[in-house]
Amino acid sequence: MCAPRIVRVAHEQALARLTRRGLFAAAGVVALGSAATSAAVSAESVVDLTHTLTPELPVWPGNPPLLAAPVARHELGGFAQQSLILWEHTGTHIDAPLHRVPGGASVDRIPAADLVAPLVVLDISARADTDADAMVTVADVEAFEDRHGRIPERAFVAMFSGWERRLATPGAFVNLDPGGTPHAPGFHATTANHLVRERNIVGLGVDTLSLDRAADREYGVHTAVLGAGRYGVEMLARLDTVPPIGASVVIGAPTHAGGTGGPCRVLALV
Amino acid sequence: MCAPRIVRVAHEQALARLTRRGLFAAAGVVALGSAATSAAVSAESVVDLTHTLTPELPVWPGNPPLLAAPVARHELGGFAQQSLILWEHTGTHIDAPLHRVPGGASVDRIPAADLVAPLVVLDISARADTDADAMVTVADVEAFEDRHGRIPERAFVAMFSGWERRLATPGAFVNLDPGGTPHAPGFHATTANHLVRERNIVGLGVDTLSLDRAADREYGVHTAVLGAGRYGVEMLARLDTVPPIGASVVIGAPTHAGGTGGPCRVLALV
Repeated sequence: MCAPRIVRVAHEQALARLTRRGLFAAAGVVALGSAATSAAVSAESVVDLTHTLTPELPVWPGNPPLLAAPVARHELGGFAQQSLILWEHTGTHIDAPLHRVPGGASVDRIPAADLVAPLVVLDISARADTDADAMVTVADVEAFEDRHGRIPERAFVAMFSGWERRLATPGAFVNLDPGGTPHAPGFHATTANHLVRERNIVGLGVDTLSLDRAADREYGVHTAVLGAGRYGVEMLARLDTVPPIGASVVIGAPTHAGGTGGPCRVLALV
Repeated sequence: MCAPRIVRVAHEQALARLTRRGLFAAAGVVALGSAATSAAVSAESVVDLTHTLTPELPVWPGNPPLLAAPVARHELGGFAQQSLILWEHTGTHIDAPLHRVPGGASVDRIPAADLVAPLVVLDISARADTDADAMVTVADVEAFEDRHGRIPERAFVAMFSGWERRLATPGAFVNLDPGGTPHAPGFHATTANHLVRERNIVGLGVDTLSLDRAADREYGVHTAVLGAGRYGVEMLARLDTVPPIGASVVIGAPTHAGGTGGPCRVLALV
């Protein structure tokens, strides 16, 4: 996946179309079109932010893991196929507004244009290393903007807490305390409201199982984001391998009618 | 979804990074970076090539439709969630090599970089209107290239047969004859081999239920594509709303370990 890749002429032309009005107009350069015939795009330009979904991947306490069973085999008809049983909020998955809000948009109603967005990553991993209840605060957003510039309009903003490092240790990802309460980092509700109202984000993401801290039972972040008609993505992977700002993200959300969410493929174009 | 959209600065910067080495180097223009601060991207730039997945959407004869059942409700705990039961090859979905080939790559093993590709659409809808067994031939590919130029390396090549117009008429999409054999257009196996070997495609797509003509029981197209380690996408939507060449496509394939395929979100960046 990391070998240099051959040029994709039409691909470049299409991506150029997205940027041309901006970059080229800003520079006073005439659109080049077929001039893009000899350039290279490296495979590193696509980063997979999705976990491989296995029955062993942690789920929210009480939810079942994915169950897959063969229903067709190569030796009987030439094709293999499985039947899948899964709850919608399994693996790297999207929360549609309907997940939290009666009457909210189901996953098939999220506009496709909102699924392609600027990617912003807020890294609180140093704090999360020592505090399983760490939160992304408005101060974190301000510090990010001081360093990287203002979060763009209609961005997808994700927390990187480093939580996936815990996947190697059984129980450490869900991280139940002796009383059975899970502990993992998340956004502060005030931060979520700020990002929705002041930065007009399309969605919010985390590398944990919940937009809210796992121990939080108010679910203020879910309410702020989904209640405003935006979406969430939980259990993202590899957010430490993309730049904090400047990449784009494509959220390959499922389209089952009336769905409250579902596993989604998340690819960063870096 | 079609209203003009506000600029996405970081997004433009990221997409520009993909094209910069190509377009800008070709033109001798220095990379502009932060010059892209005032341009607009229209929402029309994202085209959804995915059908909304409903229990009524046709499936391959003998396969069951999607089944969704509530497992959590807003009034009991604050969140709604469903359990889903579905066969992998349901709705707009991807065929991994393993679907056809014992030992072939499962869906989680398809390189992420192969899921972002130049999109090429071969339109045989005029012929398919009068011939339910119409095939995409090598002559069709040659005619396309005479008009639009050579299919780029590592493209995703899709057939548009116009078959989705039949979704409005019960039974017309699967189109069983009196003997119970389905009839719908597909690729010719020779064409698939040509595209794999001579054009090095990453994947092949159709707007019908099968890469092969539905009545074909040799499955030569599946063998040519999946046997070569490439992927297929079946039941694509709205291929008549994207240009025949020049767009990019992102295939949001599922990542369940060992999967033979699964529903996927397909978005064109036009």
